[in-house]
Formats: sequence, structure tokens, C-alpha cells
Amino acid sequence: MAVFSKEIRVSAPGKSTGEFTSEVEAGLRESGLREGMVSVFCCHTSCSLVIMENADPSARHDLEGFIDRLVPEDDPHFTHTLEGPDDMPSHIKMALTRTTEVIPFTKGRLCLGTWQGVFLWEHRARSHGRRIVLSYQGE
Amino acid sequence: MAVFSKEIRVSAPGKSTGEFTSEVEAGLRESGLREGMVSVFCCHTSCSLVIMENADPSARHDLEGFIDRLVPEDDPHFTHTLEGPDDMPSHIKMALTRTTEVIPFTKGRLCLGTWQGVFLWEHRARSHGRRIVLSYQGE
Amino acid sequence: MAVFSKEIRVSAPGKSTGEFTSEVEAGLRESGLREGMVSVFCCHTSCSLVIMENADPSARHDLEGFIDRLVPEDDPHFTHTLEGPDDMPSHIKMALTRTTEVIPFTKGRLCLGTWQGVFLWEHRARSHGRRIVLSYQGE
Repeated sequence: MAVFSKEIRVSAPGKSTGEFTSEVEAGLRESGLREGMVSVFCCHTSCSLVIMENADPSARHDLEGFIDRLVPEDDPHFTHTLEGPDDMPSHIKMALTRTTEVIPFTKGRLCLGTWQGVFLWEHRARSHGRRIVLSYQGE
Repeated sequence: MAVFSKEIRVSAPGKSTGEFTSEVEAGLRESGLREGMVSVFCCHTSCSLVIMENADPSARHDLEGFIDRLVPEDDPHFTHTLEGPDDMPSHIKMALTRTTEVIPFTKGRLCLGTWQGVFLWEHRARSHGRRIVLSYQGE
Repeated sequence: MAVFSKEIRVSAPGKSTGEFTSEVEAGLRESGLREGMVSVFCCHTSCSLVIMENADPSARHDLEGFIDRLVPEDDPHFTHTLEGPDDMPSHIKMALTRTTEVIPFTKGRLCLGTWQGVFLWEHRARSHGRRIVLSYQGE
């Protein structure tokens, strides 16, 4: 059993889902591990992670639209508004999705389903470079 | 420290939550591990996982009803509709719940609370057999 | 590689988010581990976990208010009402947030972002002491 950790930076345009599965796979190759699990951790509270269909972009488009309508920017109840109208909705969207994903791997390959990809979901309106920590454990 | 991985198939009628805690426990016994954690990973994007009360079925009934009303099938904003009206809501319900659950175990037993069970949440209208990967790590 | 497990009890006033990051850090020091990951597991179905901004309390106030409006207590669809009007909303809020968080650590420190804290989110109206299992794996 061994541990291999790596921090990567994922660039995201504002309000978008961007796939970085290939970087999680690259880390797995670097680790040299064959059987185990990787935790993918997002070091921020205004963006999040989701494992989502990566075939047809319309699915992500509809997902992004849905959560925009669910958590509108102009909610008059919000008091945490100093950093702009997209700040508080970003925290809420983060809380409703995921900060960590844990993905098993066997025979040196991630056990993702055929249509699954790992995405950074940027909730802020402007683009950001985001820190993601990949932590592989296995043998 | 050792790793033990196992893929299981969980059958689910359409739109339902089905408990498979006993299969996670069975894998733990097979692994022979006593202290550690298991990641339960769902290899799909139109069903998800949830750790929910397993005593009174009315709690799950109300949970399922709530999310059906939160993400209705007839949302005119959806464009990803080729696979049927239940497809896009399924992806959204998945994103709002979980793809992985990680459960610790000690003394060879899962550290679940008294009322906690592990459920596959099928969001599609028709029944499916779903792939779940169980990955145990510990000693 | 080694495993270190610890159960803690976190006290929470009713309907609140309470930070317990320092207890996750304390367990890491006790474990003596330097590189790896910790799973933080909530043994209940009417409270949950979230990794949220820990700087400005107004962000958490707005998050709590949002989910209260999203899952109102007086929903006439609910049938699971025997334990009070806050019971079914609690289960739903739990399902929409997280039961486990997995946080990597390197050089003996949690890889949390600058503004990230680990919170217990109590959804029931009255205060509770809640069981949390911390499971550290690494070397």
C-alpha cells in the first residue's frame, strides 16, 4: 500500500462545467498504483465537483441552467452580497453538489462508467484557476 | 494495509430507492479487513446513491416525491430530451445527491448509525441493473 | 500505511451549522500520519456535513435560509410527520448535502483551502449531540 498526492490547477471560464478526467488519469499513471481509490478534492467554496455525462454537452447545459434557476442571483433574502450577486448563489450551488469525489481504480484504470467524466463546476461569473488535490491510495 | 475491490450489480425498478447495505457488509466480510473505509461508487449518471433512514418507508416515499417535484419532467427549458422526458431530470437528481459514499468500518463492521442504510436511487422511469464498485481499504 | 479511527461527538443547537475543523485536525495529530486522506462520516440521517466558507457568518446564514425555503416544513405532500414537522425536511436536506466528506492531508496538515471549514449541519429544530467517525489512512 502506498499514497501518492498531487495538486493540480484547473482553469475554468465563469459559470461552466469543465472536464478534467484526463488529469485524474494522468496522476494515476504517475502514481504507479494499480488497485485502490483516488479522492478528488476541491479547495474552494464557490465552485464544486460533479461526475456527469460527458457525451452530449446539452445535458450539462441543462444541468447548469436548472441550478441557475434553482438558486437565482437576485434572491432578496441574501445578506452576503458584498462580493457581488454571484457570490452567495455560488456557495449554495457548491453545498448542493460536491466538494470531494472518490473514484476507485482497478488494473491501473479508473472505474468510471462509459459516460462518466469528472468536472469542475465553476459557479462564479468570472473565470478562475482552481486548486484540486488528487490523493491516490492503493497498491 | 490491503485493498479489496468488488463490482456488484444492483437491480432497481424504475424511480425508486433500493437498499443494498447487506451487499456492502458481505463484501467487508469477504475482504477480511477489520479497520478502514469502503468507497461505494455508482458507475452511472442517471442514478445515484444516498445513505437514508431505512426504518420507515414513508420517509423515502416523501424524499422521492420531493425531488420529483423539485425536478419535474416537463420543464420547458430542457433541451436534452432525446432519450425521453425522464432523462434530463435523472442527471439533475444524480448531481444533487451522490455518486460516491465512503463509509468507515471498525472491528469488521460498518460504522453506520442505527437508522442508516445504503440505497441505490434509480431516477429513470424503467428498471435497470446498475454497476456499483465497492473498494475496501484497511487492515 | 496505517489506519487510525476515532469517534467524536459534536454538539449542535437546533437548525445550525457548527464548525468542527479543529477536531479533525486534532485527530490527524493523534494519528501521527503525514500523507493520506481522512473520511469524515456522519452517523445520522437528519443532520449532514458540508465544507463551507468559515470567514463570514452571513454566508452560512444565507445558506441555511435558502435550504429552509427550498424544503419548507409545511409541505402538505409529506406523510412522514409522526416525529414532528422538522423531521421529513431534515432527511431531505441531509440527502441534498453530504453524509461523508473526504479530505486529503499532506505534511501532517489537512489540504483545506483558505476559507474552507468542516461543518456539522443540524437540520432538526432541537439541539443534538451527533456521532461523527473520523477515519485516517496514510503514512
